[in-house]
Amino acid sequence: PDDSATILSALASQDDTAVATLLESLPVEHRIKLWQDLPRDRKLDVLVEMRSDPREILIDATAETDWVALFSDIEAEDLLELMDSLPNRIVHLAYAELDAQQQRFFRAATQFDDDEVGHWLTHDLLVLPLNAKVRDGLRLIRRNVPRHCDTIFLVNRSGQFSAAVRLTQIFGSPEHVPLVELIEDNMTVLKGNDESTNASLQVQRSGYAALPVVDDSNKLLGRLDITSASELINEFYERQVMATAGMDEDEDLFSPVAKSARNRALWLGINLLTAFLASWFIGLFEATLQQVVALAVLMPVVASMGGIAGSQTLTLIVRGLALGQVSPANRKALMIKELKVGGVNGVIWAVVIGVVAYFWFTDALLGMVICLAILFNIVAAALAGVLVPVMLDKFKIDPALSGSVILTTVTDIVGFVAFLGLGTLFLL
Amino acid sequence: PDDSATILSALASQDDTAVATLLESLPVEHRIKLWQDLPRDRKLDVLVEMRSDPREILIDATAETDWVALFSDIEAEDLLELMDSLPNRIVHLAYAELDAQQQRFFRAATQFDDDEVGHWLTHDLLVLPLNAKVRDGLRLIRRNVPRHCDTIFLVNRSGQFSAAVRLTQIFGSPEHVPLVELIEDNMTVLKGNDESTNASLQVQRSGYAALPVVDDSNKLLGRLDITSASELINEFYERQVMATAGMDEDEDLFSPVAKSARNRALWLGINLLTAFLASWFIGLFEATLQQVVALAVLMPVVASMGGIAGSQTLTLIVRGLALGQVSPANRKALMIKELKVGGVNGVIWAVVIGVVAYFWFTDALLGMVICLAILFNIVAAALAGVLVPVMLDKFKIDPALSGSVILTTVTDIVGFVAFLGLGTLFLL
Repeated sequence: PDDSATILSALASQDDTAVATLLESLPVEHRIKLWQDLPRDRKLDVLVEMRSDPREILIDATAETDWVALFSDIEAEDLLELMDSLPNRIVHLAYAELDAQQQRFFRAATQFDDDEVGHWLTHDLLVLPLNAKVRDGLRLIRRNVPRHCDTIFLVNRSGQFSAAVRLTQIFGSPEHVPLVELIEDNMTVLKGNDESTNASLQVQRSGYAALPVVDDSNKLLGRLDITSASELINEFYERQVMATAGMDEDEDLFSPVAKSARNRALWLGINLLTAFLASWFIGLFEATLQQVVALAVLMPVVASMGGIAGSQTLTLIVRGLALGQVSPANRKALMIKELKVGGVNGVIWAVVIGVVAYFWFTDALLGMVICLAILFNIVAAALAGVLVPVMLDKFKIDPALSGSVILTTVTDIVGFVAFLGLGTLFLL
Repeated sequence: PDDSATILSALASQDDTAVATLLESLPVEHRIKLWQDLPRDRKLDVLVEMRSDPREILIDATAETDWVALFSDIEAEDLLELMDSLPNRIVHLAYAELDAQQQRFFRAATQFDDDEVGHWLTHDLLVLPLNAKVRDGLRLIRRNVPRHCDTIFLVNRSGQFSAAVRLTQIFGSPEHVPLVELIEDNMTVLKGNDESTNASLQVQRSGYAALPVVDDSNKLLGRLDITSASELINEFYERQVMATAGMDEDEDLFSPVAKSARNRALWLGINLLTAFLASWFIGLFEATLQQVVALAVLMPVVASMGGIAGSQTLTLIVRGLALGQVSPANRKALMIKELKVGGVNGVIWAVVIGVVAYFWFTDALLGMVICLAILFNIVAAALAGVLVPVMLDKFKIDPALSGSVILTTVTDIVGFVAFLGLGTLFLL
């Protein structure tokens, strides 16, 4: 109890994200204990900052009767963040706690998918009619300026977005000046169904604290502020990192063993199929392996050099696709360059490995066989490293997730068949 | 020429980052051509936004005599971003173009490493003495407010940071009110030698457009704004993604073949050593392989299941380390949980694979041998998946870079030795 009192007083000075990060790092029983001891008025804010999987543990541990109190200050944005983790009836409970305006915001946001900007809008806006003057702007600013809001949006009578004026322009100008004389040139306007990661990058580099978001008929829906944008981008990157191991970004450090095992089993199963496929190809050369056991000894070298070379190309292309830098216009040039790089590294390492194999097994033909197999596999890896992610992207499959497993299958099979095939030709 | 004129006019409406991204996506000759056609007053800003490797191509293509014109508006921040890409004498040239104040900023920043906040400061500040009033604040704001600046910093007579006041607080208050009555509680103050990624995360979640940065004696050095913070975090993530394939985040889509081959050769070489090590272990069982060729056929299955299971644990732990969620306090609990997950998946897949092998080779003993080897390797992979990154982190080696190659070496060797060793015991 003493211990937990110390922790709680230390947490009092930490922001919500820091508390969320700490909760995620605790084993389940400790996490639930600390959560129960957390001051009630912080619980909702902390929950919103957590990743889904660790959060669901706490949601399951919260009694049905406690939700009403937790939802006393809930806003549409909080509910949007939490709704996928909450049971349906709790979502309804929370929705009922929203005031009429927040309910409208919530309904508007759920019209958009969660990879669209419209889902992540902020509705705290400074808005004035197109004919407003500096005087009106100053009055508005003196009342209340929302977080990360550095412009006033001007709308026409139908609520369509027309232009934006920086707050700092307004302070410096005489009261009678019309705001339209102070508007920003070239401010990017986002659409509600813009893809959220790209839109977020535009916010990050705009130099504004937020960009306006409109619907198809140019009606102002809200704004995407730089905090939401940064969170969306961080999530995008985290998804990429986790995808390389077939996991998603919500994976909990301490999820229950059964759940965690289930999450990972699919990836292991897919990998098993590809491994058996590779084995089946090796099996075609059983007779060769029986006679030249050195081939079995050196198989991993051929497969792994191809795998590494291929994953280097793959990683570069996947990043290029994510940044919008790989397109039909430069695909051919990219392919040629990667083939050249593969050729250079292929020749170098093929010779090195051939020489080592020769001295190890004192067999010049074996050295030549592995030399050719490595060269062939590294060049094939470069080809696959470009083609696999480009094809996946074309079919709208995330290359960060599926790219490496497909690529490794290709390099394993090409490597084994080239090595054992050449071995059958030259060594029997 | 028509074509390039069209591109150039399209670029006129794009921001500097978009132009930088486009330049990076072009093959070298096209990149240099477009760069030469770019309006001179945009060149420096675009260059600053590019990644180092693709940028260096353009730097090399710029005539020595052109630099003076390019540097006519250069500021300390630009030079700090570019200096690692520029030859020393060009850095001196640029430094000479800075005014006295910018030179001072530049020297101050280079006192800090580029993984410290002090290196990435913005020096455009709103600063007032501690006894200033709202009237003084308003006068300051009306003159000029820098980008992403939502607070005025108050300093004492020795230039030490005391507190911050939100600009929006100032508009709403009568002119005679002392600013100290409006100060923000709990604003985080960064130190110049704070680690830059962590500090940037603090800026992102602070709700402010920038946080103040001080030196050891609390003297105000500058501020870290949310644009710089977001760029630093994006770079951190990109580094992690690229590190999984042994590359760095500056790798150019179209770097010259020789350079690209050299960049990747080291990683291939390290991988080759580990592959030969695995082969050497296989070589210990040559006699067994000669008699039971099915072992050679199934080897990739054992190795790859261990590799995948291990990399799942590794990826989770590496993220936990980066977020500060893995510590001596929860390491043991984490290890136990991962061993349990490994145990569950190990048993499931060991049985599946054992049954498949039994039917494939109609050999019950072989089925049992691979079943045990898989179980053993998946559990060892869980152990290594926790221990390897934790140890690397302790020795200050980046686990995102070196973790996977070490882990795969462990799972390969454990898998081969377990499988072939058990095969030797039971199948000969």
